[in-house]
Amino acid sequence: MATVALPDTEQLAAWRADTPGCAHRNHLNNAGAALMPRPVIDAITDHVRLESEIGGYEAADARADAVAAGYDALGAIVGARSANIAVVGSATAGFIQALSSFDFAPGDVIVTTHCDYTSNQIQYLALAKRLGVEIVHADDLPEGGVDAQSVREIIARRKPRVVAVSWIPTNSGLVQDVEAVGVVCEEAGVPYIVDACQAVGQIPIDVARLRCDYLSATARKFMRGPRGIGFMFASDRALARGDHPLFVDMRGARWTSATEYEVTPTARRYEDWEFPYALVLGQAVAARYALDVGIETAQARAWALAARLRDALGAIPGIRVLDRGRTTCAIVTMTVEGHHADTIVQGLKAKRINAVSSLREFGIYDFDAKRVETAVRLSPHYYNTEAEGDEAVDVVRSLVVG
Amino acid sequence: MATVALPDTEQLAAWRADTPGCAHRNHLNNAGAALMPRPVIDAITDHVRLESEIGGYEAADARADAVAAGYDALGAIVGARSANIAVVGSATAGFIQALSSFDFAPGDVIVTTHCDYTSNQIQYLALAKRLGVEIVHADDLPEGGVDAQSVREIIARRKPRVVAVSWIPTNSGLVQDVEAVGVVCEEAGVPYIVDACQAVGQIPIDVARLRCDYLSATARKFMRGPRGIGFMFASDRALARGDHPLFVDMRGARWTSATEYEVTPTARRYEDWEFPYALVLGQAVAARYALDVGIETAQARAWALAARLRDALGAIPGIRVLDRGRTTCAIVTMTVEGHHADTIVQGLKAKRINAVSSLREFGIYDFDAKRVETAVRLSPHYYNTEAEGDEAVDVVRSLVVG
Repeated sequence: MATVALPDTEQLAAWRADTPGCAHRNHLNNAGAALMPRPVIDAITDHVRLESEIGGYEAADARADAVAAGYDALGAIVGARSANIAVVGSATAGFIQALSSFDFAPGDVIVTTHCDYTSNQIQYLALAKRLGVEIVHADDLPEGGVDAQSVREIIARRKPRVVAVSWIPTNSGLVQDVEAVGVVCEEAGVPYIVDACQAVGQIPIDVARLRCDYLSATARKFMRGPRGIGFMFASDRALARGDHPLFVDMRGARWTSATEYEVTPTARRYEDWEFPYALVLGQAVAARYALDVGIETAQARAWALAARLRDALGAIPGIRVLDRGRTTCAIVTMTVEGHHADTIVQGLKAKRINAVSSLREFGIYDFDAKRVETAVRLSPHYYNTEAEGDEAVDVVRSLVVG
Repeated sequence: MATVALPDTEQLAAWRADTPGCAHRNHLNNAGAALMPRPVIDAITDHVRLESEIGGYEAADARADAVAAGYDALGAIVGARSANIAVVGSATAGFIQALSSFDFAPGDVIVTTHCDYTSNQIQYLALAKRLGVEIVHADDLPEGGVDAQSVREIIARRKPRVVAVSWIPTNSGLVQDVEAVGVVCEEAGVPYIVDACQAVGQIPIDVARLRCDYLSATARKFMRGPRGIGFMFASDRALARGDHPLFVDMRGARWTSATEYEVTPTARRYEDWEFPYALVLGQAVAARYALDVGIETAQARAWALAARLRDALGAIPGIRVLDRGRTTCAIVTMTVEGHHADTIVQGLKAKRINAVSSLREFGIYDFDAKRVETAVRLSPHYYNTEAEGDEAVDVVRSLVVG
C-alpha cells in the first residue's frame, strides 16, 4: 500500500475546519466539484447580500478592486500576468472562446487526442459536420495518453490549424504529457490549446512550460471554487496575432463606428460583458486560497490519497482499476464485475460518501479500449483523510463481496 | 404631469418589505440590474449553503425538481412550453447561441435595426469581417424604432438568412415593434431572433405573437433575478429544422460514436453542461415572483413612473429627454446641457440614488441621430415610489439649476 505524505496534523485539521462540508459528507467527488472552503462561501454570499442591498451594478463597482485582484490570483495559478487572463463561465466556455478564434475553412485540420474531454470531442465533430474541418486524433502511447511523437508526425504531414489537448480527461486518472506536445507545437509554429479543467488546483501550472496559446480552466473542481465560473489564459502570441472570439461582445471590443470595432488589447477580449460577480469573487478567493495551501502540497497529498485508494480497491476481487498512463492523478476509476457503476455509487451515497459514475459516452475511445460501459469515479483532495479513503474502500468491499 | 396607476398601498408596502435594497437605496437602475426580492436572494444563498455542505453536484441532484420547475416558470414568462426553454449565462449568451445556429457563407445577409444592442452590433460586424456576411440595417420610422415595412422590402430584395431585432435598446426608452417585424418574417419564411433582454419583466411576452424562432432574455433586469444568468426560447420550428449552436457541448448533444453526436431534442441543446445552479435557482424564483406580481401590473406601474419622470425632468431648463418611439418603456434617458452624464450620475449617487450614464459607444446610430455624446439613464420599476422619482428629479434639478 502506498504511503501518504502526512501533513502536519494541525494543518489538516485547519483545512477541514475551514470546510463546512467535511462535517456532512465523505466527499470523494472533487473531480466533480470540490467542497468550497469557508472564505469562498463567504465571498459569494457576502456579495449577493451587497447586491441585494445596494444594487447589482453598484455592488460590482464597490468591489472593483477585489475583482481586479482576482485576475492577479488567477494569473498566479497558471504563471501568467493578469492581462492574459479572462474570466469565463467554465473551462468548456473558455475552450470554445479559444477555438472560435480560428476561422476554419473546409479541409482545415484540428489535431487532438483520444482522451480529450467529451464536450470538446462533440465540438470537434460539430465543426467537422458544419464547417468541413477534419479531426485527426493522435496516437496514444502504449501505456496510455497522447504520444507527442505522433502529434509531431501529423503536424509534418497535415499542417493543422490548431492542436488541442485535454490535460486530464474527466473519466480517468490519466495525466497527458501536455508539455511534450507543447514543445512539438512550438517547434512547428502551430497554435496550441490546453484544456486544464481537471488539472487546475491539483497540478502546478506554468503556461511558459506548456508553450500554449490558450489554456482553459474551471473554478469548481480541484481549485475548490464555485460552480458556473472558470477562466482562461490567452498568450501574448495569441493576442498579438489579433485573435478574438467569433462572437465578441462589448467587453471584448469597443463599437467605434458604424462599420468598425476595436478589440480590447488584453485577454478581456474573451470575456462576456455580463458577469455573475458573486461567483467571480468566489473564484478569486478560491485561487488565492489554493495558492496559500500550495498547489504542490495539494498535489502531493491528493495524489498519494488516490494511489492509496487504487491499491486498496484493486485488491478487492472483481474490481479492476482503470487508470492508465505514465502519470496518474487524484482521479481514481474502477469497474466492478457484474455491477453497473450507478449501483456502487448509490451504495456509497447511502453511507454519505460522494462519488459519481462515468459512462461510455463521456469517453468513447477510452471506454471502448478498456472494454467497459461504466466506471465508478472517486476523487480525493488534500483535505480528505486516510480514514475517509478507507471508509470508501470498506463500503465498496461490502457492496461487492457482501 | 402623467398620473401613476396607484397600487393598493399595502401591496406596494409588501413589495418593498420584500426588497431589502429599498431600505438602502433609491434604486432607479432597474434596466441595469433590479433589486432582488428576498425569495430570490434566499434561493441563491440557500443553494450555496447546500453546496458547501453536501457538494456541488450532490446539491444540484437534491434540487433537481426545483431546477426542472424553473423551466416551467420561464416558459410561462414568454408563453412557451418548458421544452422550448434553455438556461444560458445572459441574454447576449442566448443571442449568440441562436446566431451560431446559422452557418453563414460569404455574401449572406443579416437584417437588423439601428437600435439593436451594442454587443449584437459588434457581433454582426465580427461576422461581417470574419465570415463575409453583409449586415443591412432596416430604416427607422420617423418617430423612431424599426420600420417593419423597410424590413419587408429588404427581405424581398436581399433574401436574408436571418432577421434580428432588439426589442428595447439599452440606451433609451424606445420599444421597437417586434410583433410587426415578426409578421413580415413569418410571411417571408425568414428566421427571426428577438433580443428581449430589456423587455422581460416589464412587457408581457408571448412568443406566438412575436412569431420568432428565437428569443433571448436575462434574469437581472426587469425580472429582478440574479446577475450572470439568463434564458432563451427556441421555437419548435427552429428545433425541427435541426438548428443547434455551433459549439454544442455534452448537455446539448450526446457523443454516440467516434464520428457522431446526437443533438438533444429539446431547447436544452443550447445549454452548457456546467451551470451556476445557485443562480439558475434564483432565476427560477425570480420568474415565479414576476408572474405572481403580474407582468401587466409591473408594466403599468413602471411605465407610469417613467412617464412621470420624463415629464418632470423635461420641465427642467437645459434638460432634453431623449426617448423616442411610438411606445416608450420604463427606461428614461436625458441629456443635460453642459454636463457629462457621469457628473449627474455621481451627484445622484452622492444622495444614494442609483442611475447610470450611457455612452455613444453603447448606441452609435441612436446617439449620433440625437447629436449627444452621453446620456443619463433612470429606470424605475413597479416597487419604486412616486416619492423616489420626485427625489431624483429634485436632485437633478439642484445639480443643473443649482
